[in-house]
Amino acid sequence: MSTLSIATAAEVFDLLRDDLAAIEQEFSRQSASNVEVITDIARYLIAGGGKRIRPLLLLLSAKALGCTSESRIRLGAVVEMLHTATLVHDDIIDEADTRRGRPSSNTTWGNAKCVLAGDWLYMQSFSTALEERNFRVLELLISLTQQMVEGELLQIEKLGHLINEEEYFDLIFRKTACLFKVSMQLGAAVTPSHEFGDPEEIEAQLGEYGRNLGLAFQIVDDVLDLTAAEDVLGKPVASDLREGKATLAVIHALERGTGADREAIRTVLADRSFTRVSHPQILEILQRHGSIDYAMDTACAYAEAARLTIADLPDSEAKRALLWVPGFVTSRDR
Amino acid sequence: MSTLSIATAAEVFDLLRDDLAAIEQEFSRQSASNVEVITDIARYLIAGGGKRIRPLLLLLSAKALGCTSESRIRLGAVVEMLHTATLVHDDIIDEADTRRGRPSSNTTWGNAKCVLAGDWLYMQSFSTALEERNFRVLELLISLTQQMVEGELLQIEKLGHLINEEEYFDLIFRKTACLFKVSMQLGAAVTPSHEFGDPEEIEAQLGEYGRNLGLAFQIVDDVLDLTAAEDVLGKPVASDLREGKATLAVIHALERGTGADREAIRTVLADRSFTRVSHPQILEILQRHGSIDYAMDTACAYAEAARLTIADLPDSEAKRALLWVPGFVTSRDR
Repeated sequence: MSTLSIATAAEVFDLLRDDLAAIEQEFSRQSASNVEVITDIARYLIAGGGKRIRPLLLLLSAKALGCTSESRIRLGAVVEMLHTATLVHDDIIDEADTRRGRPSSNTTWGNAKCVLAGDWLYMQSFSTALEERNFRVLELLISLTQQMVEGELLQIEKLGHLINEEEYFDLIFRKTACLFKVSMQLGAAVTPSHEFGDPEEIEAQLGEYGRNLGLAFQIVDDVLDLTAAEDVLGKPVASDLREGKATLAVIHALERGTGADREAIRTVLADRSFTRVSHPQILEILQRHGSIDYAMDTACAYAEAARLTIADLPDSEAKRALLWVPGFVTSRDR
Repeated sequence: MSTLSIATAAEVFDLLRDDLAAIEQEFSRQSASNVEVITDIARYLIAGGGKRIRPLLLLLSAKALGCTSESRIRLGAVVEMLHTATLVHDDIIDEADTRRGRPSSNTTWGNAKCVLAGDWLYMQSFSTALEERNFRVLELLISLTQQMVEGELLQIEKLGHLINEEEYFDLIFRKTACLFKVSMQLGAAVTPSHEFGDPEEIEAQLGEYGRNLGLAFQIVDDVLDLTAAEDVLGKPVASDLREGKATLAVIHALERGTGADREAIRTVLADRSFTRVSHPQILEILQRHGSIDYAMDTACAYAEAARLTIADLPDSEAKRALLWVPGFVTSRDR
């Protein structure tokens, strides 16, 4: 294993500053439609920010293989737009009131327009990706979207029910890790002529990094939903439980807890509210069984697995940055 | 102009029987998902029937150019599945209770699942189309979908308002004629090596046939919505007016009618109901100004234009069938 030093946040930002700025421009250009309301909704969602972690992964993956083509910018914008499309439809499905601390798009424009705006964003992503004239790119994106959509449907089926860890990991793979994985794979797919080994193998390796990182990311997200303060998180706390979703720490407590503990958790999931059992009561149960620690340890293990997956990659600034991302993901507070 | 005889319905059915059966099988195969609820919704929609006019057009277009490849079956299923995807999302948007005489999918499964089922059907269409490894095919399908989605959004913006003929034709192009056009173009796109002239020109010609036919089709649809009986139509009559949509006959009457006539129509569009002005009152206004006849005459003119567009095509059974379709479209009662 190499002894390459892990980059600092400042170094990663320096490395990607220009590319990320170019992606913002491209993203904005892509969201312009001749139908005004689409542009309005798309721009609203862009202005809402987001961590841009998916384009960042794609850039680092491409950079690690020496890619300098414009494809990385275009596809960086595509993965963020695809992500945005899923958010628009998810907000309809979850009947969300807020997203990233602001009114959700469905609250502002209504369900009908948001169904269509989401559809449009999907099509615009594919249409832009099509400009690459690369079947592998299209295959990755279309199959990804299908997996994400199936995941959301599976999630609906399981709302209010107890699920086991295996089901949980399938859900968060589809919800988050799958797009992280494809972002990394796309970086490889647009850099076919590199000399770092068998292109298919390299793509698979980078994809595996993305999968591990995505699982870590979503586990942390789910822990933050349980433990963070509303003003930090930008959305109501414990919304997962209030939507009937059992996440890793909760599943852990269900498996270890006393009969009374299990009953309390079951009640919240079935009620989809904290009317009969309070949020602090649930947190006490989770703390008592070390469930929050268990979830965070699991996230850190996936983060470490991500780092190990790219151990064989030749040393580069991009690789140093890829070694930094997992720690960033597990130590964030929102 | 050739004196080729127009096919009969029986001849067209004979010509396409096997291909249409193969498309049904392909459509059913494509709608199978490992997520049960998707398969349920997709199968429900398939069983609901529909005229399969889009696959029929694709088959005839391909056949007219001598295509014998499996692509025509696969893409025939794709255009029907894409059409089905738009219906699922449209039913959410229109808050429809029924579709083709049965409860609409959103009534049965709820909005959340139907948003996702529609997304899945879109992705499955593209995923199947991708198997063709033909960029032109993907370009046609993706740009088509974007135009349809934009059309639905434009329609929402115009609900309850008076529109002119130009706006009406833009809306029905996006809603219907665009997919008819692309179905015809796809038939050409999968038959690149034919010897009937410049491939691009032939594709454009066949597309123009589809556009004209689609406009005729939708104008007739809109007339039937105004005039047909509910048990024949399979959905509530005059639902367009009750949704605030002005269609061709209504636009005609608005331009010719007396002040009182215009006021009556405006009232229904604004109320989105027949509470203050009745459906028979509106029909009387339309009859008095010959507006229904005007709309039907316009539909027939587009049907004739469709026939003329393919005049140069070499004689064949498929061409005879294509000459039959416009008359079928304008003379149907539902």
